[in-house]
Amino acid sequence: MSTVHSPPEKVFVTAQNFSFENFTVENGEILPVVNIAFETYGKLNERRSNAILIQHAFSGDAHAAFFHEGEHRPGWWDNMIGPGKAFDTDRYFVICSNVIGGCAGSTGPSSLNPLTGKQYALEFPQITIKDMVTAQKRLIDHLGIEKLYCVAGGSMGGMQVLQWLVSFPEAVLSAIPIATTARHSPQQIAFNEVGRQAIMADPKWNSGNYYELEIPRSGLSVARMVGHITYMSEKSMAEKFGRRTKSEQDSTKFHADFEVEGYLRNRGDFFVRRFDANSYLYISKAMDLFDVSEGRHLSEKFYSLEAKLLVLAFKSDWLYPAYQSLEIVSACKISGVPVTYVEIEANYGHDSFLVETQRQSQLVRHFLSRVDETAY
Amino acid sequence: MSTVHSPPEKVFVTAQNFSFENFTVENGEILPVVNIAFETYGKLNERRSNAILIQHAFSGDAHAAFFHEGEHRPGWWDNMIGPGKAFDTDRYFVICSNVIGGCAGSTGPSSLNPLTGKQYALEFPQITIKDMVTAQKRLIDHLGIEKLYCVAGGSMGGMQVLQWLVSFPEAVLSAIPIATTARHSPQQIAFNEVGRQAIMADPKWNSGNYYELEIPRSGLSVARMVGHITYMSEKSMAEKFGRRTKSEQDSTKFHADFEVEGYLRNRGDFFVRRFDANSYLYISKAMDLFDVSEGRHLSEKFYSLEAKLLVLAFKSDWLYPAYQSLEIVSACKISGVPVTYVEIEANYGHDSFLVETQRQSQLVRHFLSRVDETAY
Repeated sequence: MSTVHSPPEKVFVTAQNFSFENFTVENGEILPVVNIAFETYGKLNERRSNAILIQHAFSGDAHAAFFHEGEHRPGWWDNMIGPGKAFDTDRYFVICSNVIGGCAGSTGPSSLNPLTGKQYALEFPQITIKDMVTAQKRLIDHLGIEKLYCVAGGSMGGMQVLQWLVSFPEAVLSAIPIATTARHSPQQIAFNEVGRQAIMADPKWNSGNYYELEIPRSGLSVARMVGHITYMSEKSMAEKFGRRTKSEQDSTKFHADFEVEGYLRNRGDFFVRRFDANSYLYISKAMDLFDVSEGRHLSEKFYSLEAKLLVLAFKSDWLYPAYQSLEIVSACKISGVPVTYVEIEANYGHDSFLVETQRQSQLVRHFLSRVDETAY
Repeated sequence: MSTVHSPPEKVFVTAQNFSFENFTVENGEILPVVNIAFETYGKLNERRSNAILIQHAFSGDAHAAFFHEGEHRPGWWDNMIGPGKAFDTDRYFVICSNVIGGCAGSTGPSSLNPLTGKQYALEFPQITIKDMVTAQKRLIDHLGIEKLYCVAGGSMGGMQVLQWLVSFPEAVLSAIPIATTARHSPQQIAFNEVGRQAIMADPKWNSGNYYELEIPRSGLSVARMVGHITYMSEKSMAEKFGRRTKSEQDSTKFHADFEVEGYLRNRGDFFVRRFDANSYLYISKAMDLFDVSEGRHLSEKFYSLEAKLLVLAFKSDWLYPAYQSLEIVSACKISGVPVTYVEIEANYGHDSFLVETQRQSQLVRHFLSRVDETAY
């Protein structure tokens, strides 16, 4: 006898926008108008005490969960956000917004500069992770939320989580930085720099002025390929591709002989259709410049923190190795901040927080349930 | 009282050339003329029993030791080769040749095709590691050497060492594969593929036909930058650069803020002055195609081997991790081949075999002294 499961009903979501004027970024330059694209899942309770802010990674966007009308793939963390899932939308009001500097609805280098009527391109100011978070705070204020039940995110999302704790400690009840770091190591900077150089080496990049011409497809694609290698583990690549050769061989020289080569080329090609090259430059630079402790010991920044933390790292993540998460944990311990740390056994490398989420789900669910049982 | 050391006298060496005709490569194509650039250090003894063949890595050349007239830097393995050094030129006759497909004297894609009078460019056949070794064997025959006392090399040099053992087992008394593998993993292929894509994305590459125009400087530079990150360890980068910023700041956007960025850009710029982009494509592809066991278990290939092996790996080498060396060791054990294995504690990552050579020197010296005490 077989059981028939009906597929879960598709829940649809639409993007929302919040705009404000005259935003002074960290370096002193002013953005006359800032738009923030965001989505919400679940319902804000009357006390406005059940809001969770989800932070996306480098190339992510506000579409974290559910479906957009007419699309077959749900949001990028749909395996973590939804009814009964880790970020349970039956309990929590989940918010995700696109970072400023991005290219998925929020103001970035590809947005029109109201002063010129043209895309900013390199006239866009160099924004920082702190600027991203400061802009988000305006959105959270606008939504009438004084205190977030939790701020959570992986990779660059985790950097924003740390920045929230330092910039707005009174507005965060708990935080989940995942597979992240308080600052980039030279190796992490180096990989980002290669991506930037690949983009800027493409003559079509044209010093950032390509919006009315052709996009720097080749350079951006190479940049993404480098990134993609660093997101996977050696093991997951070996399991996924081995040394299998492509079935359809091309007779030209230096074609993709191996499946892994074809895969990378496809990832690169796919990426250029959805991501802006200048946003790549700005956001990767923001990550490299990020140092949440501002040259001091992180524990000094955490000293008066009242939030609880869950810090997660993945054993096979060589891009954001566990020792970087342990530095965050250590700072919490030194400053008396309650922290739980788990290094999860997972094979997918840095991408584990996106794709190998079973253990992560359990840990997040249990952590959230103990933050404040009176909040929802 | 201070001791005055006089600097060791500079020993000069000049490149030599050996040519032969009609070389059929593995894929069946024929090179009408092949030149091999090589250097020798020390003296071949009367019995011709003290010859050691050194194999260079990906971007190396025949200039392994001593000085070229008018140059300030010695050969790339001068810390390992010389009087009293690991490859002791008072005892051994040391040979190093540039691989075919290369661009430092041996026939490669930048050589003139005698049939057309123009550079081969992509008309050059896709050579393999086996082809490199088969061509070298002609040089060794030409020098009147029947049996090499040792074949040694790191990285791609180690691949050639393994191929010598399999192609010409009767001609090798001992072998030292260092920081190498019997075949590339998908991650290693992926990094090479990014380098190739970076080159081919540069419009100046022009399908390989740039010899009378401008070279694809930007693409080749990006390729080298990716490579360079993989040659270092995270730790050696952290020790060398930390997050130090550059003293001379540039006011343009996306300049090198951090020392590590400036360093990588310099390495890229330096590389394009000495290396041919098409050679990059051909040689990196040869490495990716290499599988010394040809799909079988490596021990089957080693079964009738009479050579002794010293296999070396480095703890901080994440590009050619120790497990790949251990596979070679395991194949030796299974097939009864005498093998010594050491995983050396060193911080410099894959580059350790070139720069952190004290332990390696001791191990090589002791190993060589026990291979055959009657040979020299």
